[in-house]
Amino acid sequence: MSINAYGALSGDRPLEPLRISRRAPGAHDVQIDIAFCGICHSDLHQARAEWAGTMFPCVPGHEIVGRVAAVGSDVTGFAIGDLVGVGCIVDSCRDCADCGDDLENYCDHMVGTYNSPTADAPGHTLGGYAEQIVVHERYVLRIRHPDAQLAAVAPLLCAGITTYSPLRHWNAGPGKKIGVVGIGGLGHMGLKLAHAMGAHVVAFTTSESKRDAARALGADEVVVSRNADEMAAHAKSFDFILNTVAAPHDLDAFLVLLKRDGTMALVGAPASPHPSPQVFNLIMKRRSIAGSMIGGIAETQEMLDFCAAHDIVSDIELVDADQINASYERMLAGDVKYRFVIDTTTLAA
Amino acid sequence: MSINAYGALSGDRPLEPLRISRRAPGAHDVQIDIAFCGICHSDLHQARAEWAGTMFPCVPGHEIVGRVAAVGSDVTGFAIGDLVGVGCIVDSCRDCADCGDDLENYCDHMVGTYNSPTADAPGHTLGGYAEQIVVHERYVLRIRHPDAQLAAVAPLLCAGITTYSPLRHWNAGPGKKIGVVGIGGLGHMGLKLAHAMGAHVVAFTTSESKRDAARALGADEVVVSRNADEMAAHAKSFDFILNTVAAPHDLDAFLVLLKRDGTMALVGAPASPHPSPQVFNLIMKRRSIAGSMIGGIAETQEMLDFCAAHDIVSDIELVDADQINASYERMLAGDVKYRFVIDTTTLAA
Repeated sequence: MSINAYGALSGDRPLEPLRISRRAPGAHDVQIDIAFCGICHSDLHQARAEWAGTMFPCVPGHEIVGRVAAVGSDVTGFAIGDLVGVGCIVDSCRDCADCGDDLENYCDHMVGTYNSPTADAPGHTLGGYAEQIVVHERYVLRIRHPDAQLAAVAPLLCAGITTYSPLRHWNAGPGKKIGVVGIGGLGHMGLKLAHAMGAHVVAFTTSESKRDAARALGADEVVVSRNADEMAAHAKSFDFILNTVAAPHDLDAFLVLLKRDGTMALVGAPASPHPSPQVFNLIMKRRSIAGSMIGGIAETQEMLDFCAAHDIVSDIELVDADQINASYERMLAGDVKYRFVIDTTTLAA
Repeated sequence: MSINAYGALSGDRPLEPLRISRRAPGAHDVQIDIAFCGICHSDLHQARAEWAGTMFPCVPGHEIVGRVAAVGSDVTGFAIGDLVGVGCIVDSCRDCADCGDDLENYCDHMVGTYNSPTADAPGHTLGGYAEQIVVHERYVLRIRHPDAQLAAVAPLLCAGITTYSPLRHWNAGPGKKIGVVGIGGLGHMGLKLAHAMGAHVVAFTTSESKRDAARALGADEVVVSRNADEMAAHAKSFDFILNTVAAPHDLDAFLVLLKRDGTMALVGAPASPHPSPQVFNLIMKRRSIAGSMIGGIAETQEMLDFCAAHDIVSDIELVDADQINASYERMLAGDVKYRFVIDTTTLAA
């Protein structure tokens, strides 16, 4: 089946309208009419071949929401018309310890929603900047938000789970002091989620102008990280810091804010490394620097249900397909509050 | 009371015989006739003023063993003649969360055995390169090893607890695959301890010549870290890696050997930072880099008792006081298997 999509034919060309094909649904497949797809910073890196190994044509998009259009003969969990989502993962080995632990995101054979090898044409997966997608039911999420929130739910599939998973793993909740570094696509979700989990939430930003916005998003306190006195007032006090900033920056400034046994988890991967952190800052209080990557399928469902129960969605700006390239430029400039979402009905225009 | 000691009068002079004084034992103090004191790499850094803030005269030494010579009126846990040890800590605030959790090593007001401010003359603590020391009973350890092993017990007070604590904290034991990077004063203890804890132990060394020695110390396998094929064979397989190497080196080479949720703990602080590790290597398997510093008093006692029960001591070379400077040079050259211990009776010569 041939459908409308939007993608890049090479790393040095803007994205453009494309026609792509999807497989016919197999016995365990769910065919989804995509309604909206979020724009993630990873999309830009991949489409512009800034990361190794981009396969062209490249159709990005892994924050997919829509409605079930067809189901395979053995699908029992979904029916035509259901509101569903697809995140960063469309397949995995289903056999390793990671898959067995519901952490397909760490499976060595995880198949990304775009730019992963697949048996389908053209030999690699094509993402959600498209009218439709076909995904094995194991990797399809149920959406329990009201229909009217659907566009704003899309970014939960990547930005939401990428922040939810480490917050849960490192036990954000009542009685815990949690920092969120950076107030962008990821950080604004981190603030909302940590607040809803009942933690005391401190937002770190380099912009004095983001103070009010951070409070509105759920921060109990806001620290401008360029202000040494403000930073020092929080020394040795955090249980956990979620660092969403991918640009290389001074990690030591945040490490010293962790209490004994505290962890700072990085969820952004910088193109060039951060300045090397001081080992003394780890040794002195048995602190840790960790990484975290999206989340497993079961945890993504848990996150979606948590968000539905707490009326949490992303703050978005809805764009048409022909604004994707301009949105990339605005994303690079930090000019978005806080996530672009594509109205995929405009692909047919 | 004036006693013989050995220390540095400035950072650019060799250590030399000194006369120092100790306080008379207070109600809760234990006065110890020092029999042996290990030489730790930290001693050299401090005596040579390579770390900030060395106070002179500097008498190093925090791997102290000896016999109780006198006890204060309120001391109930120790009696004259008892075999005892003193490690890196001689006081702390006894009031903070760290002290309350028996982790005095992380107390902000921890008083080091040498080079920490104190009310005693000369205003900073003087360590174990001396005939005698007076320590509050809370920070005195009981030694249950046979008398004949006393010299080889001394390094347990720093090298032993520095490796024991992270191995315990990160759950080394049966069914766990544990790496130990570096086979020196710390690493050789790490191998013995991890082996005794029942883990599968892999030693990492840059020296082909250390293979047999590492096996003899308790390693089930030995990997020469310069050999890429040997390293690759262990990819994604370790639960925990104890990294004892203070010299700046490539952390990524070891991070990629950790399985999902694995941690590498650094216990050596390099003078200049390690090359900055790749964030991707943390993110991809939710790995952590942590630090760990010695251990608390209760855990040090637990370690000593564990070592006594498993017949574990350090491999040492016993030296006289007048060999201390030469021992520093040999330690810098890596020419010691694996810890120098000073026979403090030679201080009177």
